Amino acid sequence: MIVVLKSNVNENRRKQLISWLESQGLGVHISTGAYQTVLGLIGDTAKVDMELIESLDIVESVKRVSETFKRCNRKFHPDDTVVNAKGVKIGGGNFCMIAGPCSVETEEQIVSIAKAVKASGANILRGGAFKPRTSPYDFQGLKATGLELLKIARQETGLPIVSEIMSAHDLKLFEDVDILQVGARNMQNFDLLIELGHFGKPVLLKRGLANTLKELLMSAEYIMAGGNEQVILCERGIRTFSDYYRNTLDVSAVPMLHELSHLPVIVDPSHATGIARMVPPMALSAVAAGADGLIIEVHNDPIHALCDGAQSLRPEEYDALSKKVRKVREAVL
Amino acid sequence: MIVVLKSNVNENRRKQLISWLESQGLGVHISTGAYQTVLGLIGDTAKVDMELIESLDIVESVKRVSETFKRCNRKFHPDDTVVNAKGVKIGGGNFCMIAGPCSVETEEQIVSIAKAVKASGANILRGGAFKPRTSPYDFQGLKATGLELLKIARQETGLPIVSEIMSAHDLKLFEDVDILQVGARNMQNFDLLIELGHFGKPVLLKRGLANTLKELLMSAEYIMAGGNEQVILCERGIRTFSDYYRNTLDVSAVPMLHELSHLPVIVDPSHATGIARMVPPMALSAVAAGADGLIIEVHNDPIHALCDGAQSLRPEEYDALSKKVRKVREAVL
Amino acid sequence: MIVVLKSNVNENRRKQLISWLESQGLGVHISTGAYQTVLGLIGDTAKVDMELIESLDIVESVKRVSETFKRCNRKFHPDDTVVNAKGVKIGGGNFCMIAGPCSVETEEQIVSIAKAVKASGANILRGGAFKPRTSPYDFQGLKATGLELLKIARQETGLPIVSEIMSAHDLKLFEDVDILQVGARNMQNFDLLIELGHFGKPVLLKRGLANTLKELLMSAEYIMAGGNEQVILCERGIRTFSDYYRNTLDVSAVPMLHELSHLPVIVDPSHATGIARMVPPMALSAVAAGADGLIIEVHNDPIHALCDGAQSLRPEEYDALSKKVRKVREAVL
Amino acid sequence: MIVVLKSNVNENRRKQLISWLESQGLGVHISTGAYQTVLGLIGDTAKVDMELIESLDIVESVKRVSETFKRCNRKFHPDDTVVNAKGVKIGGGNFCMIAGPCSVETEEQIVSIAKAVKASGANILRGGAFKPRTSPYDFQGLKATGLELLKIARQETGLPIVSEIMSAHDLKLFEDVDILQVGARNMQNFDLLIELGHFGKPVLLKRGLANTLKELLMSAEYIMAGGNEQVILCERGIRTFSDYYRNTLDVSAVPMLHELSHLPVIVDPSHATGIARMVPPMALSAVAAGADGLIIEVHNDPIHALCDGAQSLRPEEYDALSKKVRKVREAVL
Repeated sequence: MIVVLKSNVNENRRKQLISWLESQGLGVHISTGAYQTVLGLIGDTAKVDMELIESLDIVESVKRVSETFKRCNRKFHPDDTVVNAKGVKIGGGNFCMIAGPCSVETEEQIVSIAKAVKASGANILRGGAFKPRTSPYDFQGLKATGLELLKIARQETGLPIVSEIMSAHDLKLFEDVDILQVGARNMQNFDLLIELGHFGKPVLLKRGLANTLKELLMSAEYIMAGGNEQVILCERGIRTFSDYYRNTLDVSAVPMLHELSHLPVIVDPSHATGIARMVPPMALSAVAAGADGLIIEVHNDPIHALCDGAQSLRPEEYDALSKKVRKVREAVL
Repeated sequence: MIVVLKSNVNENRRKQLISWLESQGLGVHISTGAYQTVLGLIGDTAKVDMELIESLDIVESVKRVSETFKRCNRKFHPDDTVVNAKGVKIGGGNFCMIAGPCSVETEEQIVSIAKAVKASGANILRGGAFKPRTSPYDFQGLKATGLELLKIARQETGLPIVSEIMSAHDLKLFEDVDILQVGARNMQNFDLLIELGHFGKPVLLKRGLANTLKELLMSAEYIMAGGNEQVILCERGIRTFSDYYRNTLDVSAVPMLHELSHLPVIVDPSHATGIARMVPPMALSAVAAGADGLIIEVHNDPIHALCDGAQSLRPEEYDALSKKVRKVREAVL
Repeated sequence: MIVVLKSNVNENRRKQLISWLESQGLGVHISTGAYQTVLGLIGDTAKVDMELIESLDIVESVKRVSETFKRCNRKFHPDDTVVNAKGVKIGGGNFCMIAGPCSVETEEQIVSIAKAVKASGANILRGGAFKPRTSPYDFQGLKATGLELLKIARQETGLPIVSEIMSAHDLKLFEDVDILQVGARNMQNFDLLIELGHFGKPVLLKRGLANTLKELLMSAEYIMAGGNEQVILCERGIRTFSDYYRNTLDVSAVPMLHELSHLPVIVDPSHATGIARMVPPMALSAVAAGADGLIIEVHNDPIHALCDGAQSLRPEEYDALSKKVRKVREAVL
Repeated sequence: MIVVLKSNVNENRRKQLISWLESQGLGVHISTGAYQTVLGLIGDTAKVDMELIESLDIVESVKRVSETFKRCNRKFHPDDTVVNAKGVKIGGGNFCMIAGPCSVETEEQIVSIAKAVKASGANILRGGAFKPRTSPYDFQGLKATGLELLKIARQETGLPIVSEIMSAHDLKLFEDVDILQVGARNMQNFDLLIELGHFGKPVLLKRGLANTLKELLMSAEYIMAGGNEQVILCERGIRTFSDYYRNTLDVSAVPMLHELSHLPVIVDPSHATGIARMVPPMALSAVAAGADGLIIEVHNDPIHALCDGAQSLRPEEYDALSKKVRKVREAVL
């Protein structure tokens, strides 16, 4: 960390600051230039409150040189992490196709969609059992029953399953779920992240609507700090001033997250756009940018879907998309 | 809800849609214009999935006429709600001055700050015991011990106390806390909101960094749907592209929330700006816009604060601000 | 346009509004529902001030049914527009590869880059002569001399040239330039757009940093209203809260603009990311989403570039990218 | 400027960079720490391309220590600038109340509004003659005729006049206009700014919808670099994801701009909110935050206003607001 002092700083105030920094266990390297004095802090600066130092009236500015994320940082772990969900690998060159309905509704529904998406090349099944809804009056999901139906679909197809968890309180219900999804609204529900760090199952961590890449990586760090290295990052659109689609898919996050971290990065074009007909071009766009996988909503009967029908593909649309995904992957390898 | 159909819609498709809408329990009022057909939906449209209908290829657009929030809506409850926290009233003309340190550190610290802010006119004490931190390596608060220290400060000063709860799992620790704060990152932690709806204590609900006013009101609705009407809304800055302060305080939210809802609306200028010297002008700005209160960080020794020191006022600064707050309130009444 | 009146509206006020609307030359179709009255306005509603009507106290809300953009609207012109720049076609299946340096510096520089990018498959040469710089103290471009050097490079390679115009005052200097670029900061410089509408040369119109798609299309409409239909739309990144790259490339704009308009849509990954190593993945991403072309900065010696060097590719990087672009185009056709 | 090199940098590459920096006329102060080497650049770093250096693969990060804005920087000019518009002073303790209609329509209209707002305490008259409209089909203003009508109103009331200029081409028409306004869409129309720097008349510079404070100050710098120091900064709302008002008034810009610059800072609550009933609370909010003035739309007959009627106050509403503005000013002095 580098601290630039204001010019004409009182000598006593400067000594006071330096001795306070040293009392925090840091080495301080002083460099006096023609116009300003620069302090180079050496040691475990991750714990130093940068904003506090910046607020001192003798300080001009502060710059952090090293990132505060460690375990997910590619600098300290150059090789790609490969997540393993019941034998299906994600990352490190392994592409995942996660597909399924927004909400699990009936056994017939989930089993038939699972079979359809598997036939099109999907290798993981998604399905919402606990649904975060903006309104308390909206359908909240089948909960435990929904998870049971997912397991039936897994048995029928062999596809590992992923479903969203909204509260650490429900963890015991997820013991036989293969990947636990943390939704965008819970990306900074730190209590939940800590519990998932101890739970040990692979986690699909969605980026929050207005969260920076650094914040996403710090949330992954929460899970990894508990000993769970099986984390999949997921870009799903950010909130901007856009007028014709729900969110703005931040495709640039894919190559940048790959540069910053060794964790696999997948993309959710369904929630990002909220419009079924935009899912194929945005899915292909994500693949071209190097994504390690896609998570896509597929429904066999949109008009009766209990939620988010507007963004679900029909199975035949998903099938056509899958073929193009394979072609684009080959083109960019 | 109004559904505008595309021109030249196939008659059969139109009938199909209308009968599906009727099967959802809605009345459908058809108005055929020169250029388009408009369907007016009558009944409980709050449950209708607007995006699903909008996604149908025969539909041009959909417009919701009535809001989906009910219990917090001023239309159905014209009088201001007055929240009562151990005798201190908030809203309906009652102004609250909430002040205290970011984190509770020691008994001496919290008691001395409590006495200082009370002397300056504060009528509620704040102090963080459970701290949501972006990094897992940062100080996470004294937790249960912090709450005990807050209660000691309450006993010494008579000030009711407010502290942040991060997980429903901790609810039993908050049984003797006067107001439970939901932080910006948890504004859409729906499981927590539902539990607070049953817990019955006043809730201070902070707006999320990238949440619309409608989403904030829907989160209040989650709490109120459980029977708890004692909700205080809090504007604390939104995320934009700003270059010189942490967040952008959305002062316009104050008059607009007052128009939309009967709940009290307070403002947190400390977290919004992240810079102590900007707290006074932004606090006065919020008061001029009609806020029902302020929540401000005050610390007696910023250099040693364990977190967020950069945005805390010293007691003498808070005292000077309090005097101006009173003057501005008189000016705008 | 649909106007929803508030319930319990005074009969006289309602009549007053209707007769005012009719005095504006509109037909008014009244539909009285159980809960509200809806007015359907028929006629040339593009000229009606929606916000004024919305501000009236008897009005609940207003919804525009038809778009205000006409000439660029795909509804009224289903076939793709093909722009022709000195024989090079853009749009309607014709892909353009525009490349060249940020700024024109010397004859040797621009000619050698022109030859290099042509060899890699570029079919149009870009180069800045008039440079919009945030600071008045930064290099502002070679101006007229820069345009002359571009023409020399065109003569040497046969590549049509595109360069940015910043003021209608300079139009006469652009008479022999093949495509005139309007930069992001000038997207709503309406006086300039009007002049370009009369000038008749193809225009490459960049989306402003915080402009919606509708605003971009309205700016195209300004040019087209003057009789110039040769407009290329260009997505170049929007301003968000992103932390690791300059702007957020809004790839979703590509398929949505294609849906809304018949004009060609190209993408500028250089300015969107501001980082050379992110240009290839984002370029491929744009191609996968269906872009009609790419505009990419290429420099033979980044360390000496007078501006924006950080985002320029070296010729060999551009060459490698061009090969992948072709493969991705084939994959998504 | 401080350049932090990556650890393990090749010695030759490092020397190469340093000699390149020195060839740019900079002094380079090398500080070798335990983990990294830091270069402190001394001299006229305002001309150094920070992004180019940041893009070099041996560079970890770059930090600018001094701002690139000079003439408008309070560091080099601690006293407030006082702008003088035909005898009316703005800034340095002088508060201005600018009011008038969105568009000048008729002599009767502009004269009667001018008299009304003067009676309520306004000391400058505003009125649009050249109107920047998103759509080419909307009313574009009375242009030269509008300016003549403004001058008649000035003669009748003695109020100096301010009106928007959209193109340097129109400058000669503004020779007898007292303050020239640059609209938000033209904040980075650098050609116009340069001309205004030479024109010498006071300029009211509106912040662009998505421009940072630094960019606003750099645009002021463009005007001042031409020798014109009479610049008024104006905050008028930024574009965010807000759902219930047009823009988000960034009130925090007022105290921050005062800290960064000596130029007067005024606020436009009419365009920021787009809703007449929100103008009074936001105007008072701006005053409480320390604004040097307000620019407010007033119309005597909103239903017939040719544009922006929704956000205009009636004269009696403006009169009531003016009284409160004076009270809040007294409260915060």
